[in-house]
Amino acid sequence: MSESDKLNFMEKMKPWMGWLVFGSTMLGVFLLGLLAASIMERRQEAARLYQAPVNIADNESDSAVWGQHYPRQYDRYKKMSDSETKTKYGGAYPRDYLEETSANVILFAGYGFSQDYLQARGHIYAIEDVTQTKRVNEKTPATCWTCKSPDVPRLMAQMGPEKFYAKNFNELKNEITHPIGCLDCHDPKTMGLRISRPALVEAYERQGKDIAQATHQEMRSLVCAQCHVEYYFKGEGKSLTFPWDEGMAIADFEKYYNDRDFKDWTHAISKAPMVKMQHPDYEVYSMGIHSYRNVSCADCHMPYRTEGGEKITDHYVQSPLLNIANSCAVCHRWGESEIHARVEKIQDKNSQARKMAEHNITRAHFDIAACMQAGANDRELKEVRALVRRAQMYWDYVAANNGMGFHAPQECQRVLGMAASSAQEVRVICARILAKHGYLGQVRYPDFGSKEKSQKLIQLFIKNKPPLLLTKK
Amino acid sequence: MSESDKLNFMEKMKPWMGWLVFGSTMLGVFLLGLLAASIMERRQEAARLYQAPVNIADNESDSAVWGQHYPRQYDRYKKMSDSETKTKYGGAYPRDYLEETSANVILFAGYGFSQDYLQARGHIYAIEDVTQTKRVNEKTPATCWTCKSPDVPRLMAQMGPEKFYAKNFNELKNEITHPIGCLDCHDPKTMGLRISRPALVEAYERQGKDIAQATHQEMRSLVCAQCHVEYYFKGEGKSLTFPWDEGMAIADFEKYYNDRDFKDWTHAISKAPMVKMQHPDYEVYSMGIHSYRNVSCADCHMPYRTEGGEKITDHYVQSPLLNIANSCAVCHRWGESEIHARVEKIQDKNSQARKMAEHNITRAHFDIAACMQAGANDRELKEVRALVRRAQMYWDYVAANNGMGFHAPQECQRVLGMAASSAQEVRVICARILAKHGYLGQVRYPDFGSKEKSQKLIQLFIKNKPPLLLTKK
Repeated sequence: MSESDKLNFMEKMKPWMGWLVFGSTMLGVFLLGLLAASIMERRQEAARLYQAPVNIADNESDSAVWGQHYPRQYDRYKKMSDSETKTKYGGAYPRDYLEETSANVILFAGYGFSQDYLQARGHIYAIEDVTQTKRVNEKTPATCWTCKSPDVPRLMAQMGPEKFYAKNFNELKNEITHPIGCLDCHDPKTMGLRISRPALVEAYERQGKDIAQATHQEMRSLVCAQCHVEYYFKGEGKSLTFPWDEGMAIADFEKYYNDRDFKDWTHAISKAPMVKMQHPDYEVYSMGIHSYRNVSCADCHMPYRTEGGEKITDHYVQSPLLNIANSCAVCHRWGESEIHARVEKIQDKNSQARKMAEHNITRAHFDIAACMQAGANDRELKEVRALVRRAQMYWDYVAANNGMGFHAPQECQRVLGMAASSAQEVRVICARILAKHGYLGQVRYPDFGSKEKSQKLIQLFIKNKPPLLLTKK
Repeated sequence: MSESDKLNFMEKMKPWMGWLVFGSTMLGVFLLGLLAASIMERRQEAARLYQAPVNIADNESDSAVWGQHYPRQYDRYKKMSDSETKTKYGGAYPRDYLEETSANVILFAGYGFSQDYLQARGHIYAIEDVTQTKRVNEKTPATCWTCKSPDVPRLMAQMGPEKFYAKNFNELKNEITHPIGCLDCHDPKTMGLRISRPALVEAYERQGKDIAQATHQEMRSLVCAQCHVEYYFKGEGKSLTFPWDEGMAIADFEKYYNDRDFKDWTHAISKAPMVKMQHPDYEVYSMGIHSYRNVSCADCHMPYRTEGGEKITDHYVQSPLLNIANSCAVCHRWGESEIHARVEKIQDKNSQARKMAEHNITRAHFDIAACMQAGANDRELKEVRALVRRAQMYWDYVAANNGMGFHAPQECQRVLGMAASSAQEVRVICARILAKHGYLGQVRYPDFGSKEKSQKLIQLFIKNKPPLLLTKK
């Protein structure tokens, strides 16, 4: 085009310029409208999740019924039955902690955990696992059911917690059939998170706190804390109780149990009054950096997941290591293998310290038994029995924990160090007691290198026919 | 305006619309130009920092001369002389670690650190502190100067490192007058970071690595690692050497020193062959999360600072806790008091484990001395002396560290736990040895509750007139 042509064209277009501006504005507004509509639609999809379904009964313990309304959550929940832990880590599944670490047999001598200590296979196996374990027998109270099933809140609502705890385990076998599921954590009317077990509420009350004031984010951990905690069966009524009155650190638990002169069992080798730590996961977690930064259990173990345009909480509860991309990597933008390596390094250090403590504590039990064989009486052994009780309680606070020290690496390492040192103190004092009774040599530690050998060995102690641990005078 | 007025106005404006668009575009372009000019100016200011000054001599050890060209960095450097640690933490300054923890006197019995163990007051006091400490005497080699002054690279350039190390400390007193400063870390021609001491370069070489390949970010830690490491004076030549050949963990150092049968001194109480850990800051840091995330020493201890439009590295080297806003808070967006509390909690746990280890190790030394008093010979005591050497090496790896365990909380706790347990092992074996020699009672631990009492006490051991530690047969 020549200069004059250009001017001509501009001149011709002039009357149309207004229309052009108008037209493109209209188009823009239309597209914005489409975008808004799409956003609203997504919001409505999400909102559906929060609409209270009218037809889930107050104490509906069958998760399949809930699943009709929440198919995506239920589908993921069901995935727990083909646990990937199995295939990802290889080896026996579920892991046998007595095969893996035969020291466990010695440490729990005289207690059910020395007979049977298998890896828990996840929520969906709760009923199967608890009815199959050798730790349950005809004397087991119904309290043992407390954490295993949504039938529990249903039964507790009917009979009250006291009557529930007072029953025998076998008495309720036909009533309790559904594994841990929806009702354990959710209100069927509002779908809000809800505490369904009394022990946690009571523990809060005794500390002068009201759990009803917990925030939603806190609830995303507290529903787990109904079970993933240290607890014991209190008194004759066997009511499930958290020893949180002094605090949640191991020293607080130690004080709590000592003040109440509580023991779970008498150790078959050392005759020390022992306390078994359950799985103080919530307590240990609460001392770590993730808790400090307000990251909840669900954030890592039940991360968000998008399915068909809906953002759901993944109800396939599992180790975040099996789902790094959706859990850890949301905050920690490193490669999966890097995250994995980092976690394993933390766990390896924890495991090393655990083994050191196990080494010392098993020997401490035998040293006390040797003192008994040398003729030491209960008065002479009171101090060392108290010390070995302490050492093992500290060790177990970490060992019984899920996460293998990951949830609070420094604290776990600190506690294991104290366990190892206390056990050694037992041995220092025992060496003196042995000498006083004329035995100057080393204690002859029996072979407990396998589960089988160890179980045979502790039977000898239980039958009061222990092998001779003393070397000659 | 009526409808017709509006139309009239629009009609009148029409010829001006083009000019309006043109005018506002011009204004926008002008403002953009201004912005660009401002950015360029800032860049030029910054670029000035990287221009090599022509008049700083090759081995200029006087930081004041460098300061003429880099007044902002030099001003901050000088701030180190009014250390805020003093006012912020209160109490005696510099801290006397023997007053604070009299166990230190026992642990270092027979070695200079039992006489004098004051807090280092920072780089600018390096000359003053090293010439005043009682740890330096007429036999001290010049190697002790290595980390104290930029006169050292100057002298090493003149005489070579071997001749430097071989001199006596006092011989070089008049030559070495400038405290740690610019030349220690910077190349005077390019201002780039530079390794000025041979020990680090040699340690890299022995591991088959070339330090010249280090990245700038790595150099921001490596210049510190010239001195803030574990080292020893090797052989007759007293050449400064890092025991890094096996790695940087405490087990690696243990192997290194054991393989070479190295000892710093013989313990005055237990006669064990001891190794003093220096300050393995870099090694411990390298095992922690900050190192893992590629955060350098300088990032926290010399954070960026803006002054008069220039972004400079703050040469007031200090604890990040005294400058949280510019150090920690750059990444950790929490309140200052929250950060402070978090760090102190980590350090408190570390300190608790440190005390447990100290408790056990001091007693282990006395137990060995008691065995000697009971008549045990060196052959009988070889094992326990090796064990107490180990326990104290592990303890010191953490205790001698700056940061009080903060740089790698889990690792420090792990190492302290092992120290505590090993010391207890000494005591178990000693109890047996004592019994063999007819002594069945507890060891009578003397009072070492204050620096004065402890120093008097160790003198008795040094003069071979120890108090009786045995209770009667």
